[in-house]
Amino acid sequence: MTTETLASLSEGDVLSRIFPRLPAASAQLLGPGDDAAVVAAGDGRFVVTTDMMVHGPDFRLAWSTPHDLGWKAAATNLSDVAAMGAVPTALVVAIAAPPHTPIEMIEGIADGLRDCCAALAPGCGVVGGDLSASATLTLAVTAFGDLQGRAPVLRSGARAGDTIAAAGVLGEAGRGLALLFRQAVTNDGTPDAGLAEAVRAAQPGLIAAQLAPSPPVGLGAVAARAGATGMLDVSDGLAIDAGRLARASGVAVDFDSGQLGDDPDAVLHGGEDHALLATFPAGTALPDGFRALGVIRDGAGQVLVDGQPHDQRGWDPYRGWDGAAG
Amino acid sequence: MTTETLASLSEGDVLSRIFPRLPAASAQLLGPGDDAAVVAAGDGRFVVTTDMMVHGPDFRLAWSTPHDLGWKAAATNLSDVAAMGAVPTALVVAIAAPPHTPIEMIEGIADGLRDCCAALAPGCGVVGGDLSASATLTLAVTAFGDLQGRAPVLRSGARAGDTIAAAGVLGEAGRGLALLFRQAVTNDGTPDAGLAEAVRAAQPGLIAAQLAPSPPVGLGAVAARAGATGMLDVSDGLAIDAGRLARASGVAVDFDSGQLGDDPDAVLHGGEDHALLATFPAGTALPDGFRALGVIRDGAGQVLVDGQPHDQRGWDPYRGWDGAAG
Repeated sequence: MTTETLASLSEGDVLSRIFPRLPAASAQLLGPGDDAAVVAAGDGRFVVTTDMMVHGPDFRLAWSTPHDLGWKAAATNLSDVAAMGAVPTALVVAIAAPPHTPIEMIEGIADGLRDCCAALAPGCGVVGGDLSASATLTLAVTAFGDLQGRAPVLRSGARAGDTIAAAGVLGEAGRGLALLFRQAVTNDGTPDAGLAEAVRAAQPGLIAAQLAPSPPVGLGAVAARAGATGMLDVSDGLAIDAGRLARASGVAVDFDSGQLGDDPDAVLHGGEDHALLATFPAGTALPDGFRALGVIRDGAGQVLVDGQPHDQRGWDPYRGWDGAAG
Repeated sequence: MTTETLASLSEGDVLSRIFPRLPAASAQLLGPGDDAAVVAAGDGRFVVTTDMMVHGPDFRLAWSTPHDLGWKAAATNLSDVAAMGAVPTALVVAIAAPPHTPIEMIEGIADGLRDCCAALAPGCGVVGGDLSASATLTLAVTAFGDLQGRAPVLRSGARAGDTIAAAGVLGEAGRGLALLFRQAVTNDGTPDAGLAEAVRAAQPGLIAAQLAPSPPVGLGAVAARAGATGMLDVSDGLAIDAGRLARASGVAVDFDSGQLGDDPDAVLHGGEDHALLATFPAGTALPDGFRALGVIRDGAGQVLVDGQPHDQRGWDPYRGWDGAAG
């Protein structure tokens, strides 16, 4: 039995294996196969965000399945669209992969893209893409959204007195990653697929939060309709992202430690949560799925916990990567 | 004197060095700095295409300057937008680079993006992006366009009797690449920057066609207004791309060898031209910048030269790369 790799198939063969697995987008007016796609933008504008996932700094092939990779690449971009208060409409996906990559890996990525769109943003689909060769497996997803006539919800809109609230899981993605680095590597530190399987079986929630997160994509537009004044995707850790909102808005964020759970440090500094952090005018009945974490105060970019200054440390893509892959 | 690298700067520092160099887009409603950008889509639709450039298969750092890389990444995507008959409005740009990359390289890429937009698609600019670490320098550009109320010009629209015409340079990019592989490598085949400089000085047109092409982006919308029935970007070689148009349209493309210049083989099989190939109803006065290359005949995907079947060979991203970088 031979393994079919990208090098053993033509570009056309590969695309014909992938296209049928991809989800269709309701907003698609012209899909893959021409020089470009055409997507509906009902209110005369579109929201756009782009995010790359790179083998090494962003994932280990010993830990993530191809399905995980496709899922996470979609989820992180869908979350950024949601954080504007928009409804995701479409994705374009560029994949660069080593020529020896089995076609099954690309098929698995396509399945993950499809299942993530179906679960988190029904109606959103893949309208186009690109396939390249590279020494480093790389997924570049660009996602689009529809503001449905509303103003985008910016990170600069928070005002003193607002309630700060979150939707989605905080801290678990970071705990899942720490678990993998502790328990899913061999004695010399090499990521190991068998060990990762055992960790996943023991802690499915934490591992899914890291490898195939389910951000509350649908709640972005819900928050906008409920009057959110500011919003952003928590991707680098609650503390650092709260600092971004505080600086952009010219305010201070004051978290109530009683709302940060049993492990406030994991919640504040975990990273890769892809939760939504939003502010609402005082007295707003928070939409289902949001929970209050504290209040916005007069300030100039501070992050406080119970009124005391708090460290805004978080993840930096260049300083944080040691060059390892696996 | 120390070199500032991506690893020595924070993500915020890098972005603050890049943003001021990037071109603004007329269609930008919200630019970089939030979770996503917002772009105007005047006629309720947008055209979108994405294309990656990867160190190794797509460029050699010994041959391309950072400015070349930014320019080419923009140009190839702008050409795909033009090939739909659309006017480019905006780009998003994701760059993954090794941590030891000097910040000057990223600044040069930004300058190339800016200068290419200014030269080929005035008003088009960069509205967002992403910066990641990777062992392999990778540029993923996604480009948007405005159809201005027109139907997109598809590759499936050519009809028997149409004139087939091209705008832009054919064959020179491939000749430029062949020249680099012949004259800009050391005896052991290693790409060499000094030798490339000499080749560029001797043959500036051929080298620019390969490393920093200037596709006729503005002529895409011109062709659409002139009644083009079919159109595509010639990226993999005239013969293979004519075959794509022929198969999509269910016709045959018959080139007149008298119109293919002194070196028809280079014109038919060169690759990376990023010329526009378009079909117009018989008798259409071709817009300035287009030249007739032949006629569309009844058929089923054939490419003919003077009525005789012709090879559709061209570039395949996986079969064509030997794994070398340099």
